[in-house]
Amino acid sequence: MTEPLFDRIAIVGLGLIGSSVARAVSAHGLARTVTGYDASAEVRRRAEALGFCHRVADTPGEAIADADLVVVAVPVGATEDCVAAIAPHLASGAILTDTGSVKGAVIRQVVPHLPPRVSFVPGHPIAGTEHSGPEAGFADLFDGRWCVLTPCERSTDESIAKVSTFWTQLGSQVETMTPEHHDVVLAITSHIPHLIAFTIVGTAADLEKVTHSEVIKFSAGGFRDFTRIAASDPVMWRDVFLNNKEAVLDVLGRFSEDLSALQRMIRWNDGKSLEDLFTRTRAIRRGIIEAGQDTPDPDFGRPHGHDDD
Amino acid sequence: MTEPLFDRIAIVGLGLIGSSVARAVSAHGLARTVTGYDASAEVRRRAEALGFCHRVADTPGEAIADADLVVVAVPVGATEDCVAAIAPHLASGAILTDTGSVKGAVIRQVVPHLPPRVSFVPGHPIAGTEHSGPEAGFADLFDGRWCVLTPCERSTDESIAKVSTFWTQLGSQVETMTPEHHDVVLAITSHIPHLIAFTIVGTAADLEKVTHSEVIKFSAGGFRDFTRIAASDPVMWRDVFLNNKEAVLDVLGRFSEDLSALQRMIRWNDGKSLEDLFTRTRAIRRGIIEAGQDTPDPDFGRPHGHDDD
Repeated sequence: MTEPLFDRIAIVGLGLIGSSVARAVSAHGLARTVTGYDASAEVRRRAEALGFCHRVADTPGEAIADADLVVVAVPVGATEDCVAAIAPHLASGAILTDTGSVKGAVIRQVVPHLPPRVSFVPGHPIAGTEHSGPEAGFADLFDGRWCVLTPCERSTDESIAKVSTFWTQLGSQVETMTPEHHDVVLAITSHIPHLIAFTIVGTAADLEKVTHSEVIKFSAGGFRDFTRIAASDPVMWRDVFLNNKEAVLDVLGRFSEDLSALQRMIRWNDGKSLEDLFTRTRAIRRGIIEAGQDTPDPDFGRPHGHDDD
Repeated sequence: MTEPLFDRIAIVGLGLIGSSVARAVSAHGLARTVTGYDASAEVRRRAEALGFCHRVADTPGEAIADADLVVVAVPVGATEDCVAAIAPHLASGAILTDTGSVKGAVIRQVVPHLPPRVSFVPGHPIAGTEHSGPEAGFADLFDGRWCVLTPCERSTDESIAKVSTFWTQLGSQVETMTPEHHDVVLAITSHIPHLIAFTIVGTAADLEKVTHSEVIKFSAGGFRDFTRIAASDPVMWRDVFLNNKEAVLDVLGRFSEDLSALQRMIRWNDGKSLEDLFTRTRAIRRGIIEAGQDTPDPDFGRPHGHDDD
């Protein structure tokens, strides 16, 4: 029997991501024991009942004592308090990693609290669903997905290699980049799409002339794809926007300019410019299909039922 | 053997929608003969080779002679010229219908050209894919989808009933509303989502700091859902925005206001308001799930491959 990658893994934060990491670690046999902790007593109780950790501890200190890998999987805004609470208990030689969707702000919050002889490897598994909580996790959430590592001044070569092996063994493909670059890339590929989706769903809900029932009934015309991502965890996303403010506002500014330009094309009947833009965006979609990142949606436009009465 | 619903159906415009109507009519046996026509000689040639019509005519006059149902399935901006060309050839008693995504503008363009003793029932099957052309059509495109009819001053009760039966027999659920209401409902459920998707994909393509390869690689974080709808037919969408200008600009104005409010919440660290909004949009998503209009996406966030080099 081969040695597991870690002796004892502690997971702090037992929501969708943390509980999936716990389940995946067990499924792949990556640690002798997995201990969990969550700031919410209610979540601890549910996690205990679900049984995906060997033990759910009542304090962060108990959870991480002697752990050689500590995975912090809390909303970005809770990271600093969380790390401040666990820092005094981190074992010498332990590796700390996280799963936050923003990396620059997390590093600024975590590094000042780190004791000596503890490495920190910031990470971001690009995986999730629109559901949240310990019940929402599952063992193969990270299978076939990307995990981005953004080493900082407290990452040693050895700790980076070990965390990289960890995610690879959970089934992910690992990519390394700077925290600043990560935050710009994710602003456009994830944060702004979520922000826009949250906005349009809110706009639709406030229209006086169109009923909620009609929005829902005819949502297959395009709107439905936006509601899916607008159902993601409110606290997690609040924290993402507040902690990646600079990149989000920068990309949002460009989007707003582009939207105003499009608005102007419509107002002034500039069909040529509209057609040119749409032809260009179509080519980008083809790039995604050719890169094997998606397949055509056979259900596009198809209502799965109806609520007409 | 029961009588088919129509004796002869003519379809003008043989792209995704027109060619799907032709295939569906044959599959369901709704006419004795189906004749097709397209303004493009190249499309006529391909349609002839595909064989989904009994005959592809070389002129609109030949195509619609003696047809008791004429389906116009051309981009909204081409509707007026198309109807002007076929009007002199419409048989007395014929029913004309269309499939355009905008109804007010289409009615204003069509009605002045209608000869006496011809009924017009404006329609909009809410179905489609991001592909276009006669090869993209398929017989069950309308199966289980909504079709909206928006009767006008030239719709008789009999013609409305017959077109309604037509779409029902193609597998659709039919809903009737005024053209004005249709145009506002579709502005929010379809036109604005497409417009936003076209914009964000363009914004992403123009970023200097993020490569196209990175946008594609990490598109599973939310961006991917936008590229799908941003790949739809450029000419069709150009015409939708130019012909539903009033409703589109109205809803777009509200969206821009809401986006500015969100931008301001981020800039001023108003976490409470962000969380409130995201909690509200999550509830709307639940409404769609409960109404059976969608199911959770098992592939959310999962890359289907990679292009890392």
